[in-house]
Amino acid sequence: MITDPLRDLPTFADIEDAALRLKGIIVHTPLLRSDALDAAVGAPVWIKPEMLQRTGSFKMRGAWNRISRIPDADRPKGVVAFSSGNHAQGVAETAKVLGMKATIVMPSDAPAAKIESTRRRGAEVRLYDRINESREAISAEIAARSGATTIRPFDDSWIMAGQGTAGREAALDAAAMGVTFGSLICNASGGGLLGGVAVAFEALSPSTDVYVAEPKGHDDLIRSLDAKKIVANAPGVRSIADALMSPEPGVLAFEIHKRRVKGGFTASNDQLLDAMSFAFHHLKLVAEPGGANALAVLLNNRAHFASRGPVLIVLSGGNVDAEMFAKAIARPPPA
Amino acid sequence: MITDPLRDLPTFADIEDAALRLKGIIVHTPLLRSDALDAAVGAPVWIKPEMLQRTGSFKMRGAWNRISRIPDADRPKGVVAFSSGNHAQGVAETAKVLGMKATIVMPSDAPAAKIESTRRRGAEVRLYDRINESREAISAEIAARSGATTIRPFDDSWIMAGQGTAGREAALDAAAMGVTFGSLICNASGGGLLGGVAVAFEALSPSTDVYVAEPKGHDDLIRSLDAKKIVANAPGVRSIADALMSPEPGVLAFEIHKRRVKGGFTASNDQLLDAMSFAFHHLKLVAEPGGANALAVLLNNRAHFASRGPVLIVLSGGNVDAEMFAKAIARPPPA
Repeated sequence: MITDPLRDLPTFADIEDAALRLKGIIVHTPLLRSDALDAAVGAPVWIKPEMLQRTGSFKMRGAWNRISRIPDADRPKGVVAFSSGNHAQGVAETAKVLGMKATIVMPSDAPAAKIESTRRRGAEVRLYDRINESREAISAEIAARSGATTIRPFDDSWIMAGQGTAGREAALDAAAMGVTFGSLICNASGGGLLGGVAVAFEALSPSTDVYVAEPKGHDDLIRSLDAKKIVANAPGVRSIADALMSPEPGVLAFEIHKRRVKGGFTASNDQLLDAMSFAFHHLKLVAEPGGANALAVLLNNRAHFASRGPVLIVLSGGNVDAEMFAKAIARPPPA
Repeated sequence: MITDPLRDLPTFADIEDAALRLKGIIVHTPLLRSDALDAAVGAPVWIKPEMLQRTGSFKMRGAWNRISRIPDADRPKGVVAFSSGNHAQGVAETAKVLGMKATIVMPSDAPAAKIESTRRRGAEVRLYDRINESREAISAEIAARSGATTIRPFDDSWIMAGQGTAGREAALDAAAMGVTFGSLICNASGGGLLGGVAVAFEALSPSTDVYVAEPKGHDDLIRSLDAKKIVANAPGVRSIADALMSPEPGVLAFEIHKRRVKGGFTASNDQLLDAMSFAFHHLKLVAEPGGANALAVLLNNRAHFASRGPVLIVLSGGNVDAEMFAKAIARPPPA
């Protein structure tokens, strides 16, 4: 069990502990099917739709598991976090429910929907310039001044254990139906969700091969796995997957990735938009670009995954502006 | 139990029987929550998202329950149905799975997404002119010529019992969580879904008040309940809720409505678009105009429903063209 979340790796016992803590707070998202997707892939596919999670992404799982552990004495000082949006909302909603003050450092070019949703949840938003300012420095200054607890987006084992509850739910629900996934595909930015999901499947379904989905140009984890050490993305490469722009994998998360991630694939901006269109037309789900990454990877590597039997895809979020979504769904969905 | 589906009303035993028949074929859709919706309404709201059902609407529940009962001797002659789209897809997908031929009579102005999805499922589509042709006459002619079994959209008790499985699932899932809905809101066109849901709740949660949601100008059921007899809509009134344009309630369904529906509300086209926007921004679900009717009614009658405690809304479908959806989500969601 974790005693220092910045040092100890999460185990399955930590995920079980997080699941108890999250009960009644977060949504046990269902496993969904689609006959259109099954037909397109040529294998049965199960969908874990985390856009249906509270705040529209998986992020509140980790935020709740971390923030709810802050000692009573420190709670009045609040929390501070930096985030392009989904972590921001998870932290803001958690702080609101717990009656704590939250300050979120967000890039000024984050989707308006994410900035607005963060403010609506009562958080103070400090916008920064992605090019000329350091979000880490701004957060550290706020924490030093206010005594607020910093809530990291991924490199914290309580955060990872919280995100891992999504994997635990999927593995338990599949087992209850007698289904064993040959493979699962989960997107990664810092890799907290992927790390947590991988630990859950290691315990509950160790035969399932774990794959990472990354946006093209942000394949830091795939390259880090190849290099057997953490390597960063080239600076300045932009992707429409605003949720997946961490420069490199988290240090703690990468220890799990090295142990459990079998491989990975990237998806281009066009492939992400096509996957969003597929999700709209066939799944009736709203996926943001990053949230559609696993679907995009599946649709562009069908034979690879179909040959491994039943597939699980984790769709991580749906916080997307109307303009971007309208652009995606105007594209014909991939056949 | 039903012996003649054009005469006998469905009972809860018929819904239980349908549930057994549908097991493994249709999706047991989850009950979803949204903190944004709870806050907007001022009461806990549960969402039954039938856009996540196979074929993107609830309609396959009834289609499967009806078509799978066709005797072996009649199966080679196929089925015929008329539908603006969702029933078409439910019938087409069922026939495809059962290896039967399906002919669907569809209005030429039905959403392209629905016509395309029906064809993709292997059905033959016969388009007709809504103004100058009679869909009933065309269907009858096809049935007489081919010996195909006519699959009515709602006025058939096996169809209603199938649709009622959505209500059975919601009532059982709520009971398992210790939740009792004070009220439920379900849209109606011919009223088969509403009739089936009402029978399920009569058996499983009789204290839940049942309300109907109708598009403005298509409030035939609300006016029929007032008049205590079936009255039709004025001809020629158009709504964007293409799924909800039956001229009057079904004769069998209305017998249930009279017994169990406490009241109803309408929603204008603008209110339907606003509800679609709310579902996009906050629920991350794709709702078609008719599928958003219950949400629109809830958002425009908040005090009425909040005073009755926990609310269930049935969102019946998500088969909407990208253009219409883009138009809806460009509107700011109702606060």
